[in-house]
Amino acid sequence: MIHALLFDVFGTCVDWRSSVAREVRAVLPGVDATAFATAWRAEYDPAMARIRDGGRGYVALDDLHRENLHKVAEDFGVTAPDSLSHAWERLDAWPDVASGLTHLKATHIVAPCSNGSIALMTRLAKHAGLPWDCILGAEIAQDYKPKPQVYLASCAALRLPPDQVMMVAAHNDDLHAARAAGLATAFVPRPTEHGPGQATDLAPEADWDVIAHDFNDLARTLAP
Amino acid sequence: MIHALLFDVFGTCVDWRSSVAREVRAVLPGVDATAFATAWRAEYDPAMARIRDGGRGYVALDDLHRENLHKVAEDFGVTAPDSLSHAWERLDAWPDVASGLTHLKATHIVAPCSNGSIALMTRLAKHAGLPWDCILGAEIAQDYKPKPQVYLASCAALRLPPDQVMMVAAHNDDLHAARAAGLATAFVPRPTEHGPGQATDLAPEADWDVIAHDFNDLARTLAP
Repeated sequence: MIHALLFDVFGTCVDWRSSVAREVRAVLPGVDATAFATAWRAEYDPAMARIRDGGRGYVALDDLHRENLHKVAEDFGVTAPDSLSHAWERLDAWPDVASGLTHLKATHIVAPCSNGSIALMTRLAKHAGLPWDCILGAEIAQDYKPKPQVYLASCAALRLPPDQVMMVAAHNDDLHAARAAGLATAFVPRPTEHGPGQATDLAPEADWDVIAHDFNDLARTLAP
Repeated sequence: MIHALLFDVFGTCVDWRSSVAREVRAVLPGVDATAFATAWRAEYDPAMARIRDGGRGYVALDDLHRENLHKVAEDFGVTAPDSLSHAWERLDAWPDVASGLTHLKATHIVAPCSNGSIALMTRLAKHAGLPWDCILGAEIAQDYKPKPQVYLASCAALRLPPDQVMMVAAHNDDLHAARAAGLATAFVPRPTEHGPGQATDLAPEADWDVIAHDFNDLARTLAP
């Protein structure tokens, strides 16, 4: 019996690539905004890796985004305002997300289990209309996915054993880590997260507990 | 400029006394349910005081409620099931709360800053229809109000300075502690929280930044 659903957010709930590009375009005219967004996102995992590996204490993703912004701006030969790092609070949801979450919320606890901070997830939810019951994930655990502690701390905060919690993600590696921590798993493909030429995560790569077309399909599948 | 509103919950948002009495009545027939609820609540502060004073590490309120339940049941000469401690997840909101919070949420971040855990606040919000943006409070801080760290950790989780955050409570002592931590303050009286003979917190005892009749009045006062 699944009592709570935890969601990956960047890519799974929201279209970070076109939303960040829109924000970049508004303040850095003349820059290839989509290339800038992609380059900015590419700095995400290495920045977290240092923290996961213990080379740096926990630093909120808001701060990593700001540090990475200036690194990427330098590579593009421009100067970016600090305020552009708030672009990650203004990402648009995929069209099925608000309605799917609203249906799922009627029967389950729904919460993000993202690498975004409580502040970032809270503001993003207000922008994108994500009706979370609470905000879980990296900040609760003071570490970053795919470390098992992030999934386990999120379940513990709900006082639920992992096998009563399902992780929902568009990324097979997130689900592998969640399954290894004992959670149930649901895959929802987002085939244009990385643009028209996307080559990864187009299909489930394991026998995930649920495979759904989108969040409305997930709600139908999990309806009691 | 106030960007976020933090709320006390037990007493300020929900009527714990009559709700807990209803839950007690359902499983312990023959017991004076209102007296039982009052006695159970009276164990709340001493249990937290040991943790605030460092005599015990942080223990979630869910566990303190369960421990206190059995203590009070013994005093009443009955045996109570562990499951009764979930009564605190099924408290009804005062009639103005859901509509007031919904209005306030349109212009502010709204979150509980309660001594209840994330799990307890999440389930209570689903029961009582409290549309929180996120869950802050004791568990984030790993300590209990009125320790300043609980208010400060809640502001920090939102990445806001305390003077951009307002604490809303029906209890003057909660507001004194919030003001000492640098937060703005709003008083909303709940003159029947403790029943018809209530003698405390009937009126504001300091020049709080806002004094409102109820949450709808608070929303009107804070409307941009």
